[in-house]
Amino acid sequence: MDPQAQTADTLIHPGWIVPVIPRGAVLENYSIALTGDRISALLPRREAEAITARHVLELPGHALMPGLVNSHGHAAMSLLRGYADDQPLMSWLEQHIWPAEAAHVSAGFVRDGVELAIAEMIRAGTTTFSDMYFFPDACAETAQRLGMRCQITFPILDLPTVWARSADEYISKGLALRDDVKHSTLVTVGFGPHATYTVSEPNLIKVATLAAELDVAVQIHLHETRGEVLLAVESNGERPLDSLHRLGLLGPRTQCVHMTDLGDQDIALLAATGAHVVHCPQSNMKLASGTCPVTRLLAKGVNVALGSDSAASNNDLNMFGEMQSAALLAKLHSEDAAALPAFDALAMATINGARALGLEDRIGSLETGKLADLIAVDLSQPETQPVYNPLSQLVYACNGSQVTHSWIGGVQVMQQRQLTHIDLTALGSRTRVWQERIRNRFPDD
Amino acid sequence: MDPQAQTADTLIHPGWIVPVIPRGAVLENYSIALTGDRISALLPRREAEAITARHVLELPGHALMPGLVNSHGHAAMSLLRGYADDQPLMSWLEQHIWPAEAAHVSAGFVRDGVELAIAEMIRAGTTTFSDMYFFPDACAETAQRLGMRCQITFPILDLPTVWARSADEYISKGLALRDDVKHSTLVTVGFGPHATYTVSEPNLIKVATLAAELDVAVQIHLHETRGEVLLAVESNGERPLDSLHRLGLLGPRTQCVHMTDLGDQDIALLAATGAHVVHCPQSNMKLASGTCPVTRLLAKGVNVALGSDSAASNNDLNMFGEMQSAALLAKLHSEDAAALPAFDALAMATINGARALGLEDRIGSLETGKLADLIAVDLSQPETQPVYNPLSQLVYACNGSQVTHSWIGGVQVMQQRQLTHIDLTALGSRTRVWQERIRNRFPDD
Repeated sequence: MDPQAQTADTLIHPGWIVPVIPRGAVLENYSIALTGDRISALLPRREAEAITARHVLELPGHALMPGLVNSHGHAAMSLLRGYADDQPLMSWLEQHIWPAEAAHVSAGFVRDGVELAIAEMIRAGTTTFSDMYFFPDACAETAQRLGMRCQITFPILDLPTVWARSADEYISKGLALRDDVKHSTLVTVGFGPHATYTVSEPNLIKVATLAAELDVAVQIHLHETRGEVLLAVESNGERPLDSLHRLGLLGPRTQCVHMTDLGDQDIALLAATGAHVVHCPQSNMKLASGTCPVTRLLAKGVNVALGSDSAASNNDLNMFGEMQSAALLAKLHSEDAAALPAFDALAMATINGARALGLEDRIGSLETGKLADLIAVDLSQPETQPVYNPLSQLVYACNGSQVTHSWIGGVQVMQQRQLTHIDLTALGSRTRVWQERIRNRFPDD
Repeated sequence: MDPQAQTADTLIHPGWIVPVIPRGAVLENYSIALTGDRISALLPRREAEAITARHVLELPGHALMPGLVNSHGHAAMSLLRGYADDQPLMSWLEQHIWPAEAAHVSAGFVRDGVELAIAEMIRAGTTTFSDMYFFPDACAETAQRLGMRCQITFPILDLPTVWARSADEYISKGLALRDDVKHSTLVTVGFGPHATYTVSEPNLIKVATLAAELDVAVQIHLHETRGEVLLAVESNGERPLDSLHRLGLLGPRTQCVHMTDLGDQDIALLAATGAHVVHCPQSNMKLASGTCPVTRLLAKGVNVALGSDSAASNNDLNMFGEMQSAALLAKLHSEDAAALPAFDALAMATINGARALGLEDRIGSLETGKLADLIAVDLSQPETQPVYNPLSQLVYACNGSQVTHSWIGGVQVMQQRQLTHIDLTALGSRTRVWQERIRNRFPDD
């Protein structure tokens, strides 16, 4: 054994380790050592006993696994959770969400909304999230302050909003943020053109050029509904996915969010270009958007990650719920109870997310040398007993509240359900202030 | 004010009361008084201050609502949670579940399995469950010992099992149980013929005759899959629902569980006869069974309740998850984001369940004179903040772990997340003994 590995900052002896790589593995009587921001060893317990560590944790009823990767969302919108439910998509947006955003969204709104979102995400096992929202600098600042990992794809629209007046301004502000955080170990920045129906072709071409030049990620809402696809075909004779391809925007840096209404030719194009899909099952169901054909995509080798979308259309940021919904929806949709088995759903929420976000070499699995982004899930509670197969318990029975410990880059952000970086009482007070402001501005809702 | 109401055992001042009746109501600045096993008053807080109570509870961040009614399940199968997932339905049953049951199910298995199920159910807000499983006497005994309300529909099959050898023996044992518990305030007993493909017509006619004579409930698995319906049509030219009707088994005492693959004529027949439907969304999705057309049923006036089915096909007994899944699935299935709004899902899990189980006059809503079956849900946690509409938070954002207090017939069964009747440590030990036995019996699984 490497003498380097004889000391560690933290040594954990859990009941099970679910490393995600190798595929489907469940290790019993294994331990994991964390040193600095990395996983320094993953080895049989009897060998691990030789390691001297400052903190030793015995978690015999817990499964240890990679922190979850929430690959799509709008974190600050947690302040609009449940603000206008059970509405058709367009009236939800046009009569409720957009007016509320126009009236209230500011850097302060984003700071508080992102903190609320991060509190909820860490409590349910997420350690990395992707965000697309106004004032992305406030999101970046909040994530770094709270020790949370995130990919920010700054928004780009043709229309003016509270954050910027033109596509050029969105882009220049976004690229300035990218410069500001270029040394951050937690935050990466990419482009977030909203959709093909809200960003003109010249502006999409600009994004394509800059993204290739800078080698950074692009995340875009695509094929969210059949209506979106039909309107595009009516207006320019082309499906949105084909437009992206023609504009040079479809490739291994591209993250296509939602992706309902896909035919075989769409799936073949995704596979050929190496573009990633981010599936948001609960949001797609709640807004009656349609169904992403996950099993067909995976069968053709397309990488499919998982996202919660915002709390305004979900209404939670719980990736355990998304894993369960993804698996159940895939079985129903493909009329096959064996479709999308537990491990595949778990992979979507971990390594596939890391791959989509370009972070595969650093996170998404428990492997020596990777960043120490990991969580402990207590399977000894009645909800997850007995344990025949920890993978089944994690995907089909765990509701997220069994996550007890969480580390991001080796820093412990939750300990026995207590958040170490967030004061929930103070956050609750600020949340209620926003609630009163937003409620009073729209007394008819 | 009634001088009777000037004293109470318990007086609760919550942030909100969701009484379910009247439809959609959310009461702020209201209080509720419990006396003996009943709700003795529900009134504005300023009037409630005049009541003298032995216990006074301030719950300013909580919503108080009726305990949830889980209208279909097989509680003891919690011991098989996650035992054989991601299998097609018939191999799941024939190669895994049925052999395991044949080898292990006993009165002791049922006692421990039901206790595990009740622990999980109370922790997620259920106060009444319906059960259909072998050794129903062990279930009845356990439910009464733990203070849990339940409807037991004892199983009836043509085939011999560990519990009985013939349909007549199932029926005579079941009716003996009904006599044994006839004075119980917690347990009611009805008939549980398994399905039209496992119980012959003469035996179904026997059930129809006895159920009418005794005026008791009948619960049956019906139209669980399109395959079941097609096989029935092939074998006798009749859809299972039509067979039940011809045999005199379709009426206001009948609870039809699952009900996928329904045409307009099926829905009209259900509406005309007053039979109830129990929708099990997560089980139907996980086993790829099909979709119950909930919005069409409700539109025609059919009463639709909600059930978890067993933990072996779900894999939890969390009715908050079922409410959310029911709402999301209805929206997706009917391609309408406004379909099955939050209150309708909440009604399915409360008053509709009470109605299906024939308990509508006693439970399912918070009304003066009804039994004190109620729960408190903490909405002050990050997962359910802010609160624009408590109904939205309960259905779309609450994962069940926010339920903090629960009363059944005025008896407190959970207090600040602590179960008052169940020793979780002892239950955990017994669960692990079953796990080892079951795992060792089938080493290949």
